[in-house]
Amino acid sequence: MHPLSPLLNPASIAVLGASPRVDALGHTVIRNLQRVGYAGKIYPIHPSAQEVLGLKAYRSVQEIPGTVDCAVIALSFDKALPALEALRAHGIHNAVLYASGFAETGAEGAALQDKLAQYCSDHSINLCGPNCLGLYSVASRVALYSASLPENLQLGGLALISHSGSACIALSNLNRFGFSHLISLGNGAVTDIGDYLDFVAQDDNSTVAALFVETLRDTDKFAAAALKMRKAGKPIVALKVGRSTSGAAASAAHTGAIATPDTALQAFFRRLCVVLVEDYDELIETCSLSLSNSRIPSGNGVAVLNVSGGELALTCDIAERVGLNIPELSRDTVDALKDILPPFGSPRNPLDATGVAVFDTDMYANCLRALLADPGISLVAISQDCPWTLGRDQAATYGRLAEAVVSASANASKPVVFFNNVSDAIHLDVLEPLRLAAIPALSGMRNALKAISHLIQYHEYVQSEPASFAALRDERWAARLASSDPFTERESKAFLADHGITVTLEHLATNADEAVTAANLLGFPVVLKIDSEDIPHKTEVGGVVLNLENEAEVLSAFANMIERVKVRLPDARINGVLVQQQVSAGVEAILGIATHRPFGPGVVVGSGGVLVELLHDAAFEIAPVTLEQADDMISRTRLDRLVSGYRGALPADRGALAAMLSRLSEIAVAYEHELDAVDLNPVSIQPFGKGAVVLDALIIPKAKAILETKQ
Amino acid sequence: MHPLSPLLNPASIAVLGASPRVDALGHTVIRNLQRVGYAGKIYPIHPSAQEVLGLKAYRSVQEIPGTVDCAVIALSFDKALPALEALRAHGIHNAVLYASGFAETGAEGAALQDKLAQYCSDHSINLCGPNCLGLYSVASRVALYSASLPENLQLGGLALISHSGSACIALSNLNRFGFSHLISLGNGAVTDIGDYLDFVAQDDNSTVAALFVETLRDTDKFAAAALKMRKAGKPIVALKVGRSTSGAAASAAHTGAIATPDTALQAFFRRLCVVLVEDYDELIETCSLSLSNSRIPSGNGVAVLNVSGGELALTCDIAERVGLNIPELSRDTVDALKDILPPFGSPRNPLDATGVAVFDTDMYANCLRALLADPGISLVAISQDCPWTLGRDQAATYGRLAEAVVSASANASKPVVFFNNVSDAIHLDVLEPLRLAAIPALSGMRNALKAISHLIQYHEYVQSEPASFAALRDERWAARLASSDPFTERESKAFLADHGITVTLEHLATNADEAVTAANLLGFPVVLKIDSEDIPHKTEVGGVVLNLENEAEVLSAFANMIERVKVRLPDARINGVLVQQQVSAGVEAILGIATHRPFGPGVVVGSGGVLVELLHDAAFEIAPVTLEQADDMISRTRLDRLVSGYRGALPADRGALAAMLSRLSEIAVAYEHELDAVDLNPVSIQPFGKGAVVLDALIIPKAKAILETKQ
Repeated sequence: MHPLSPLLNPASIAVLGASPRVDALGHTVIRNLQRVGYAGKIYPIHPSAQEVLGLKAYRSVQEIPGTVDCAVIALSFDKALPALEALRAHGIHNAVLYASGFAETGAEGAALQDKLAQYCSDHSINLCGPNCLGLYSVASRVALYSASLPENLQLGGLALISHSGSACIALSNLNRFGFSHLISLGNGAVTDIGDYLDFVAQDDNSTVAALFVETLRDTDKFAAAALKMRKAGKPIVALKVGRSTSGAAASAAHTGAIATPDTALQAFFRRLCVVLVEDYDELIETCSLSLSNSRIPSGNGVAVLNVSGGELALTCDIAERVGLNIPELSRDTVDALKDILPPFGSPRNPLDATGVAVFDTDMYANCLRALLADPGISLVAISQDCPWTLGRDQAATYGRLAEAVVSASANASKPVVFFNNVSDAIHLDVLEPLRLAAIPALSGMRNALKAISHLIQYHEYVQSEPASFAALRDERWAARLASSDPFTERESKAFLADHGITVTLEHLATNADEAVTAANLLGFPVVLKIDSEDIPHKTEVGGVVLNLENEAEVLSAFANMIERVKVRLPDARINGVLVQQQVSAGVEAILGIATHRPFGPGVVVGSGGVLVELLHDAAFEIAPVTLEQADDMISRTRLDRLVSGYRGALPADRGALAAMLSRLSEIAVAYEHELDAVDLNPVSIQPFGKGAVVLDALIIPKAKAILETKQ
Repeated sequence: MHPLSPLLNPASIAVLGASPRVDALGHTVIRNLQRVGYAGKIYPIHPSAQEVLGLKAYRSVQEIPGTVDCAVIALSFDKALPALEALRAHGIHNAVLYASGFAETGAEGAALQDKLAQYCSDHSINLCGPNCLGLYSVASRVALYSASLPENLQLGGLALISHSGSACIALSNLNRFGFSHLISLGNGAVTDIGDYLDFVAQDDNSTVAALFVETLRDTDKFAAAALKMRKAGKPIVALKVGRSTSGAAASAAHTGAIATPDTALQAFFRRLCVVLVEDYDELIETCSLSLSNSRIPSGNGVAVLNVSGGELALTCDIAERVGLNIPELSRDTVDALKDILPPFGSPRNPLDATGVAVFDTDMYANCLRALLADPGISLVAISQDCPWTLGRDQAATYGRLAEAVVSASANASKPVVFFNNVSDAIHLDVLEPLRLAAIPALSGMRNALKAISHLIQYHEYVQSEPASFAALRDERWAARLASSDPFTERESKAFLADHGITVTLEHLATNADEAVTAANLLGFPVVLKIDSEDIPHKTEVGGVVLNLENEAEVLSAFANMIERVKVRLPDARINGVLVQQQVSAGVEAILGIATHRPFGPGVVVGSGGVLVELLHDAAFEIAPVTLEQADDMISRTRLDRLVSGYRGALPADRGALAAMLSRLSEIAVAYEHELDAVDLNPVSIQPFGKGAVVLDALIIPKAKAILETKQ
């Protein structure tokens, strides 16, 4: 039995704050339980009433005979903690608390909430809330819900888990899909999204989870639950709010949530196969499609079938905007369509079956069959204009087209998805045949195409092979990092080289003669760099000289550099001068390790050089990343073009860069607890086949203070 | 009377192809006319029938007694031209042609269409079509329409002008707003969008035009009509399809349209105050808002009122995405809200009136009043979750909130806009009070906020002062350009200097001594550049040397350059060497004049330097542009940050750059017919107060052949 089962499916319920007054919260909850036909026992708690809503009332929890699975606390915020104590005394470890007045109201409320959370943690109490609408388990007919129940709610596969009560109201009143659970968890002080997701993963009534997320707290728990969902083949569709600057501020004001950098959030969700949507409409269509589609697209090629030439270009525009691939049709399909279409038809994708389809639905059905037979097509979308406000004649026309869709797709193995071009409810004459044939029917071209794009991407991610990564941890380096002492460039590079990352060849010289010897060994030209753990920014103090072509230049540069640095930073410890191979010009990149709380460490790649900060041209993923993912990251930056041989230059060694990035991500994981950040800037990507080499590097261990806090 | 009045509001109609057969096009058109209660005369033309649908039939147009305003040609494509000849013989100069089989089918059909268009042009015939559904003038009860009439169509202010018949069907069956005209013009062979827009501008029944545009042909006519619309205070909302690469290809296949670069299209529409939307839903909400809102926002500050904390962050996210400004509230408003809200409320924008509002609608109404009173707020948007599928109880709750909105906004001078957070029809209990109070009610948070953003921007553009521009044309320079002979850098700069654009100081030297003299005059360092009309790309042939610090360097560089260039390009005419002031490093920009057909000349600005092509960091506007518009263009590029003093550099002279761009746009207009392109690359933007200077320039006159074609 899942730990949350007694909360979501209790056999008996105590209602603290039960009241005969119709406007009392405790009254609403009992009425809701009765309305849904709750089959377990309800124990109203009331100081004096003999009964509430026809049920025998008790003066306190203690008076209830026998054990109770769960309690609802329909009391004001100040009575919450005493209530929990009373519940615990009676052995009740599951409760729902609706009251506002906690973290959402400011510091005082936050302190009270912390106290509550601590109490629940100390005594193993599963608490839903505070500041929530509570729980409604539709299949098991349990409504621990403080708002009016959605009157038209159907039983179905969607589990809605939401920080916001309004989102529950908005989504549960739509009549677009059926629900297994409505979970409005408010401040999530004790049980949060990850806990409920973990429940949904093993719940037979739930096939898809929809999330309305204000803030992500325990990312490890969330990730573990998401992994269970993935294994169970249950998609998660998430609307995360507070992603923009102003949205994060509003969310912080509302929930005290800390802003999460959006790139990191996207990376985290992508990694977990969580579909991230941008608004209610996109959530609704994506959930609708995920719930109703039993056939799985085996690739990303989509065909669209319409009866309008004008709308095809619109379909293409929107498909391109949402990243949907509408490929050309195969030669065979084109030939087949030539025979099917009227002479003036044009056999291409998207396909306009022409106005003739309205009269000749067989022709229309044959168009659909031809598209489904194309090996490059993994899903066919049917585009129609069929709002519920259609007149009788036109509804009949579109209804006949819908029936043709049903008949042509009956035995297909590929998914067929129907959508109304405008975001309006579909006319019943059209919807009904689709519903009977279990063909998903979506609303609005943009959101429908976006939902299809999500579906395809979800299955691509889910089906991708589990990756294997190298375990790189070397305890000697771990100990070195744990000392928190700063790294010089030289030591940073030694660290990288020890982990299989190519760095410039170099020697430390403590006098000018050694420098000349080293230069001769490396070959001219060379670079000189001051070597000091006290000087992280060498250029600023004249600690870098490039392009030294001969012995004389090395001699004079060495002497000048030592003198210059000593004048500027008399107290810096100087180990000597690093004599470095000068790598011939390649494409410059930056690579790095960075951590965005609350997520684990990640890697960054971007185009390098002086414009780097200006361009903000970087891709981020949470570590580790495979070679393939690393390559995909490169594709998302301007490096994609730079390494392809921009402006007549030779193509650069993109594979070497991807390998370096993947390896760096393994380092990030190996030293997660000791490493704060890594900055490889620049990395020179040499011509194709010649590799990539780190020209400058900085390893930053975690600060001593942070390391000690964690121990 | 408008030239298209006899087409859109004819007193008598001949129907060629009239037929007693119910599936005949000519039958549908007469039935449609009868259904809408057409009050004029209908003359069915039929070779043998005595009457059609109860109307006396004629064997030919010639037999009709008296004059006829307009004819519908319900015949196949091959009979179109003979029909037009017969009509013309009877003095009928207005017709609708439905048939397909023209340009949309390929080269043969295009040739036939050209013939048709030529005939109409020669004989002043207003033809609507071919390949269309035709016309429905709702107010005057004329339906020259070949499809089923939308059964629930209401009379209203929206004129829909569409290349696509499907768009007419999709939008006219929605029941979201009333129509003055449905105009499905198909291939637009004779009368196109500009013609109908010109009609709508002076039509009393129309207040807003919605366009579905597949291709823009006569941009001058369109611009003139759009200007009339602007003067009449009638917004134009346009959905242009074929904007993406694949969409343009689909559109080309469908209509033979030439792709229009999307940046140029956007600039063209922005200039004309045409609101450009991306899909049907955005079109619908924007039209709905434009039609129903009589109050005009005086600024861009929007407040949003909700009863949910969770949705506020979502509102902010979406507002930021669609470019809507949701400012902080004034001190006074915050104070007022502190008194109005319950103690745990938070007086900020967006405003959560809290769940208490559901019970205390007076408090809710007072929140709205406080927001309306804020001087920084020009429009208040009301966000609610109220789909038509709501249960009775919840609908009643939201209905009461809607009534509070009505009462609080009754006497306000600022617009109040209501929206349902999901894209679903609004529950009637909520919609009805809003409708009676003429408060616009929109669907879907994203599209509603986008529509509001469009409304605000439209009024900002419309209210902006008409700009005045300098008339720069100098006939001597015009003649020089008209010669089509290539310009050297020196002559290009002389042209620019003559038109008030700052260029580098420079002298032409024909021997080394002259070069030294010039260098001394200019001051070291100097630049040498080969001067030859035959060498547009000087760097490639060693024709540029920078950083010459003294006389000796100038002497040797001069000799070397002449020698080098003569070896590489022995046939090039060499005028000498340009000795140029070397301008100290500033921020580099590129400026240029470019023309994107079918629009007039425009100006481009972007960040310069070697990465320019890679970055694609440029803004485009059609000329001329004001200083303010030029500044706005700079804001849309990375120059925005570069000129602000990136990486510790001093801020650069942004004003000088804007002035140069505006002046360049005046040059573009002045020499529109002679100038092909101008390329100022780079322009050096000096530190604040020191101006901007053109370092290299190329003026490209129109080719002789093109000039001659135009004469």
